[in-house]
Amino acid sequence: MFDISGYIENKNRQINAALNQIFDDAQSSEPIVKAMKYSLMAGGKRIRPILCLAAAEAAGGKLQTVMPAACALEMVHTYSLIHDDLPAMDNDDLRRGKPTSHVAFDEATAILAGDALLTLAFQVLSSVKVGGENQASSWLKIIQLISSAAGYQGMIRGQMLDMAAEGQHLTVEELQSMHSLKTGALIEASLLCGAWLANARQYQVKNLKAYARYIGLAFQVADDILNVEGNPQKMGKAVGTDEIRLKSTYPALLGIDSSKKFAKNLVNGALQALENFDKKAEPLRALATYIIERNR
Amino acid sequence: MFDISGYIENKNRQINAALNQIFDDAQSSEPIVKAMKYSLMAGGKRIRPILCLAAAEAAGGKLQTVMPAACALEMVHTYSLIHDDLPAMDNDDLRRGKPTSHVAFDEATAILAGDALLTLAFQVLSSVKVGGENQASSWLKIIQLISSAAGYQGMIRGQMLDMAAEGQHLTVEELQSMHSLKTGALIEASLLCGAWLANARQYQVKNLKAYARYIGLAFQVADDILNVEGNPQKMGKAVGTDEIRLKSTYPALLGIDSSKKFAKNLVNGALQALENFDKKAEPLRALATYIIERNR
Repeated sequence: MFDISGYIENKNRQINAALNQIFDDAQSSEPIVKAMKYSLMAGGKRIRPILCLAAAEAAGGKLQTVMPAACALEMVHTYSLIHDDLPAMDNDDLRRGKPTSHVAFDEATAILAGDALLTLAFQVLSSVKVGGENQASSWLKIIQLISSAAGYQGMIRGQMLDMAAEGQHLTVEELQSMHSLKTGALIEASLLCGAWLANARQYQVKNLKAYARYIGLAFQVADDILNVEGNPQKMGKAVGTDEIRLKSTYPALLGIDSSKKFAKNLVNGALQALENFDKKAEPLRALATYIIERNR
Repeated sequence: MFDISGYIENKNRQINAALNQIFDDAQSSEPIVKAMKYSLMAGGKRIRPILCLAAAEAAGGKLQTVMPAACALEMVHTYSLIHDDLPAMDNDDLRRGKPTSHVAFDEATAILAGDALLTLAFQVLSSVKVGGENQASSWLKIIQLISSAAGYQGMIRGQMLDMAAEGQHLTVEELQSMHSLKTGALIEASLLCGAWLANARQYQVKNLKAYARYIGLAFQVADDILNVEGNPQKMGKAVGTDEIRLKSTYPALLGIDSSKKFAKNLVNGALQALENFDKKAEPLRALATYIIERNR
């Protein structure tokens, strides 16, 4: 049995070390840096960077090469959480068991900390030491991938759809298409970053993309289930909020049992997508199951 | 006499055409795209992209090569205006003669439109077709330049300092150091983008950097003077707001006449920095004067 907790713990440590190294110690007392680090180092699950590293591993790549992309993905994710939590958006006070950025600091600082993390992601991606034009074009391609996944055709579009959907009755198809943008796009980008930087073969890229789509959706279904059944202490945020906000969710549309079955089927789909990979894909396989069995 | 109005008008037209082309027509009815275009195409002065193009021209570069950087700079600038205008920051209702983004749409849309423009800037920069002389490594360097100028060590740091300074008495030195970050960093990046992409020689890059520092500061001094003496109709925004907000400004610290003298001296410094350039730098020379003589 693959030790997924140990794997996640280990990768978490490496990612946190890499994230910490990005900041200049001389500026650590500045309010903007404090706010950026407050959210970035708040004990997130690091799902996206871990998926990125695990995809690279599955394709035989080196952790060291991929780490800047993994860090950038976590920064983009963290910026999106800070902005989503703002009073003008979801107005959430608690995230990862701590006051959200605008509560801990103030609204202006939270907006700017999000902006700064998004900007820093691209600074990190463009500061990688490249050895030749080939490598430079790979990183340009990574920047294009992450920016288009995060932008108005991807994650931001999903957030707009999500806001517009509040209080509306979505169909399962509409819900799926919203989530495929809001969370799916960056999860897919995470796996593709790992695959591309590991010079994965074409069929591997295709399979990892399929895997990404299954687990992206499974991740969301699991999130919706946690919002009904989760333990707020373990999750570090309130539960039952989707129902209060009249959000369309899988449990609301399908019922809780069918939602669980649906999540299980998606994980099976993800595992099938990895059929042609050898044991280097064990972490990805274990992560697929972890994503629907996690308690936070 | 160089026709600066004609030059600006012409460049404006080219920049607007390039900016419009970036968006996919199929998505033009989406709220997020409407909000992005609303601010991006609101008739801004296009100072940063024009400086970028004029710097490239001065160093013998081609407009076509530099245009993606010019567009990205305007997007970054526009995002910063949208977020600065938010209720949690400057709470401005009017910009370029039109309601600000959060007034025309809503706060959530304004936050996301800013985020989307910032993200799109990096998408544009990373989507440039590279090959031959148009090297991937040059564009990585441009992304690094713009992201570091815009980020927590540049523009965002300046915005944090500006907010912290409200109601405080700054010295001229503190004011200058705040502005060198808040507006100076992106103006300097604009000129460097043009210079680098035109393969400017080392002494030219150095001179353009000096020019940038002079006009960046001159631009700010002129802005402060306009906030006292400007015509709100022509400017498309309220005047006298700095005094109401107890902002430290050059007129408040030096008096209006000395501020004008200071701006004139800075422009002379900028012109001196261009001494070694031939007539291809005429637009940059005329722009230096325009920057302190503009009425909006």
